[in-house]
Order: sequence, then structure tokens, then C-alpha cells
Amino acid sequence: MDKDIKYMKEAIKEAKKAYLKNEVPIGCVIVYNDKIIGRGHNERETKQLSLAHAEIIAIKKACKKIESWRLEDSTIYITLEPCSMCGGAIIQSRIKRVVYGAKDYRFGVHQSIMNLFDVPFNHKVSVTTSVLEDECSKLISDFFKELRENKLAK
Amino acid sequence: MDKDIKYMKEAIKEAKKAYLKNEVPIGCVIVYNDKIIGRGHNERETKQLSLAHAEIIAIKKACKKIESWRLEDSTIYITLEPCSMCGGAIIQSRIKRVVYGAKDYRFGVHQSIMNLFDVPFNHKVSVTTSVLEDECSKLISDFFKELRENKLAK
Repeated sequence: MDKDIKYMKEAIKEAKKAYLKNEVPIGCVIVYNDKIIGRGHNERETKQLSLAHAEIIAIKKACKKIESWRLEDSTIYITLEPCSMCGGAIIQSRIKRVVYGAKDYRFGVHQSIMNLFDVPFNHKVSVTTSVLEDECSKLISDFFKELRENKLAK
Repeated sequence: MDKDIKYMKEAIKEAKKAYLKNEVPIGCVIVYNDKIIGRGHNERETKQLSLAHAEIIAIKKACKKIESWRLEDSTIYITLEPCSMCGGAIIQSRIKRVVYGAKDYRFGVHQSIMNLFDVPFNHKVSVTTSVLEDECSKLISDFFKELRENKLAK
């Protein structure tokens, strides 16, 4: 199996964990030397913490795992296009490559609202989009559909 | 004393804590209803964590303190212009106002490299710059001067 697909499936597993916690289902894994060194899923509501996006949780774990703030030569797989905070955290962590599934038309900083990765900071990130896009996107639309139905049923 | 100056002095106190740990001296406090609800200073090297910027640490503490991810009606005082990660975290946290001291010509996302706060996200932040700018800036230039002298002395 193509490696990008393999690891995006792992990110989707994380997103499903968020779904089960009634969180918007977004998941992420960080891969270095063909090993997952950090995983995370959105826990903003559960933790009541604005920082608790999938990517931030995964970056924290990855830094701890390799005992360094520099995640150079790592790839981050995310089910959704990152927001400005997470895009910035990817740059600050010197992550080499971003792979994401679905677009985020409200907050996405790769293509949707702006391109943060094209801004002339001192670190360049390469980006691959649309990996398992339909699956990543359907997970989120199913979540919001269910949320609306539950609200209507009340 | 003017409130912006009063709270920037508190952010400078935090920056000095970073200095004592041999970290680039950047400090931050978050104020809500005229009370400090979160404080932080740069600890990236100490913690070997890319996320350990002053703002991220202070936001985490503030969310915990008020038991909510929404820091609406709060003001964040930072000794240095925020980077993209911290600028994004400010937007994600719905912080109302940013007050900073010195400019960051390498990473700053208010004026130096780009203006993240002008990007059409769903949250608008108001920004006040240059509060105690000389003091905030001198702290950082003194730090790097000392670092260079120590390297030369070795």
C-alpha cells in the first residue's frame, strides 16, 4: 500500500476516536523514519482547551518521543487542512512535509483562506493534498449531520 | 499607571524568567476583567518542545483557569510580536486584543512578515503595538549579545 494512504488511514483512526468523544472528527499522526512518533485527535471540547487540536497534541508527543523540538525530516498526516495555529506549529517544529485529506473552507491555511506555507519564513514545508479526501470529508459531514439530527430530535 | 504599561511590565517579568533559564527572553500575560489569568515565558529549549512559546503556555493556563477554551474579552500582553503559531492560537482562542512590545522581523505575523490578523477568519483581533518597545527589545538584544560574548570566550 502507498505510504501516504497507509498513514492517512492511521490519522483517520485518530479522527474516529474524536468522533466517539463528540468532538469534530479530526486526526493526525507524525511519521519519522517510517515510524509513527506522535498521534493526536481533536479534544477541544473535552479538554476545554483551544490548543487541543489533533496536530498540537501529536507534535507535543513527537517532541517528547524524540527528545527534541526539531521534528526535521518528519511528515505530518492530518485528515483536515490545518488552521493557522497548527500551520504555524508545523513551521515552528521544522516539519518537512504535510499531507492532508479534506479541505477546511473556514480555517484552512494551505489553500482555503490563505497559503501560510508560501509566506517567506525561514522554513519551507512541502504539502500533498487530497489523500483519502472523500473519507476524511465524509467523516466530518456525517458528524455535523448527526449533530443537527440530534438537535432536531430534542 | 496606564493599564497596558502595567501589564506589559508583568510580561517583561516573565521574559526575565526565560533569560535566567538561558532561553530567548519572551514573556506573556493574559488579562481578563483586570486580572491576570495566565502567565508564560519561552521554554522551548528547556522543554525541548516547539510549542513551548510564552503565549501557548499562558493560553493553556488561562483556559484551565476559566475552564473554557473561549478566552473572549481577554487581552494578551506579549513582549514580542507573535509568530504564526501563536498568532493562530490567539485567533483560535477568540482573544479580543493583542498588545505587544518589540517587533520580530524574522517571524512576526502582525506587521513584520505578514498580517495574520487581517486575514478573513471568523474572528477579529485588535492589536496595539510598541508598548515598552525599547525595554522589550533591549532584553532580547542583550541576551544575544551575551550569548555571542560567551561563545567567543570559550
